[in-house]
Amino acid sequence: MSLIVVGTMAFDAIETPFGKSGQIVGGSATYVAWSASNFVQPVNQISVIGYDFPKDELDAMQARGINLDGVQVKQDQKSFFWAGRYHMDMNSRDTLDTQLNVLADFDPVVPDSFQGSEFLMLGNLMPKLQLSVIRQLKQRPRLIVMDTMNFWMDTAMEDLEAVLKEVDVLMVNDSEARQLSGQYSLVKAAKEIRKMGPKFLVIKKGEHGALLFHEDQIFFAPALPLEDVFDPTGAGDTFAGGFIGHIAATRDISFENMKTAIIKGSALASFCVEKFGNTRMKEINAADIDARMRQFVDLVNFDITLAAE
Amino acid sequence: MSLIVVGTMAFDAIETPFGKSGQIVGGSATYVAWSASNFVQPVNQISVIGYDFPKDELDAMQARGINLDGVQVKQDQKSFFWAGRYHMDMNSRDTLDTQLNVLADFDPVVPDSFQGSEFLMLGNLMPKLQLSVIRQLKQRPRLIVMDTMNFWMDTAMEDLEAVLKEVDVLMVNDSEARQLSGQYSLVKAAKEIRKMGPKFLVIKKGEHGALLFHEDQIFFAPALPLEDVFDPTGAGDTFAGGFIGHIAATRDISFENMKTAIIKGSALASFCVEKFGNTRMKEINAADIDARMRQFVDLVNFDITLAAE
Repeated sequence: MSLIVVGTMAFDAIETPFGKSGQIVGGSATYVAWSASNFVQPVNQISVIGYDFPKDELDAMQARGINLDGVQVKQDQKSFFWAGRYHMDMNSRDTLDTQLNVLADFDPVVPDSFQGSEFLMLGNLMPKLQLSVIRQLKQRPRLIVMDTMNFWMDTAMEDLEAVLKEVDVLMVNDSEARQLSGQYSLVKAAKEIRKMGPKFLVIKKGEHGALLFHEDQIFFAPALPLEDVFDPTGAGDTFAGGFIGHIAATRDISFENMKTAIIKGSALASFCVEKFGNTRMKEINAADIDARMRQFVDLVNFDITLAAE
Repeated sequence: MSLIVVGTMAFDAIETPFGKSGQIVGGSATYVAWSASNFVQPVNQISVIGYDFPKDELDAMQARGINLDGVQVKQDQKSFFWAGRYHMDMNSRDTLDTQLNVLADFDPVVPDSFQGSEFLMLGNLMPKLQLSVIRQLKQRPRLIVMDTMNFWMDTAMEDLEAVLKEVDVLMVNDSEARQLSGQYSLVKAAKEIRKMGPKFLVIKKGEHGALLFHEDQIFFAPALPLEDVFDPTGAGDTFAGGFIGHIAATRDISFENMKTAIIKGSALASFCVEKFGNTRMKEINAADIDARMRQFVDLVNFDITLAAE
């Protein structure tokens, strides 16, 4: 049940209609690892940080079973930094500042001890770095899941297409699925995207849930209706972490098990948005997750009799 | 299992990115009746039409078990007419033309033969006319369901508030729920709206499904992912018709049964959008509806074990 996670470990500064976070820890691989480690340990982490990344954050991750042997520390550079402001709808946001810092010349190296891992989660990162990690693996993982975003479609489409050919599951949001496929209908978009490589496609729709496509099958998982979404940052990464974490823990890559994985991802994401950054992810335990899974069952469960009335 | 349906019977002229309908039959009560009559007959219809409403449409409705005794025919006026153009997202639309015609001085009259009906569906219509029908009923129906829209919130809020006090179930879309409550979070919006009268609230989210709120319970029904949405006109009315039709047929007004009713409404709406106007509603049969209900089961059904992994 060994899992490699690749992505950023970074600082964010977030503004929402409800407040400002100040500089807090973020990054795709940070969120994925916190989420996945609820289900599977160790999480073999590949990332890069600067001299300024807080030691207590690293200690907390290690205590959680996140193996940081693949995390490079650049003592003369700062960590990647992103600042953004969310609009009232909490779905759209403006980037206020991006400082690549350590990310500018990041060259991920897979430690020997990570070789042979069964599962690979490529968190949002430059596509060529995602591909570099795949190429370094001596044995292809049983399942490769890739998260990406519109920014790479705009600036590195060739690299992105090359990675797509290598992965089993792609995760994007609805507008990214439309951009990538050139199709407005998500059903049609899914068909086009699966021609690009991934056998499975997960389309994340934020507060509107998520869709899983595979061959002619579609599964839909709702998002939990919440009184307040405090900070959506990292919700997609947390969703991905719950998804791959469940699959790595169960070692079952069937469509049926992916359904459960999506519900687990949705449950984890519903915690993530309740506070700034990864605060909530450090607080919750297995009982909290189970209680929320029960809410998902209640939310969508219905009995029908299909006989004529 | 007697049901009264109140609303418009009208002409529409629809433009979508895929084509123009020309002048076709529409109206909230038309769609509700076609949909509900899949499950319950007769449907006791209350509406108003002009001299120009096609006789073959009336014949088809009567053949379907829709009782038109409550439909006034104004021989010197034209039927209500609406023209609109949908944007690419098929969620937003512009009104191009509205001609009230017979609707301008419509005074609905409940036929004696409709008295004692157990269920009342108030389709989208001027709130004061919805209220007039409620007031004419000698015995309160077991369940009163009301559909409305933002236009009445802008122009007839006092009347709308008066009707809200009298109904059991309110159906609105997400932006209307936000406008009516002044709350962005739909969970908070539902709490506010239920204080206005309705014990149950259905929030329709178009392609993103529908939510049912009652006390502390929430149920979510997805919309079926479709390759193409050809014409969304009437989808909300068709949803309402499937909902009240199932409830009237089963005579069960429990929260549990409302879940099934919402799935039935969603299934009917998924047919409605496949062609212009009510074309598809005339084509489908019980087997088609059952097959689509099975798709809903497949779409959201998942197995989970909540024990620790």
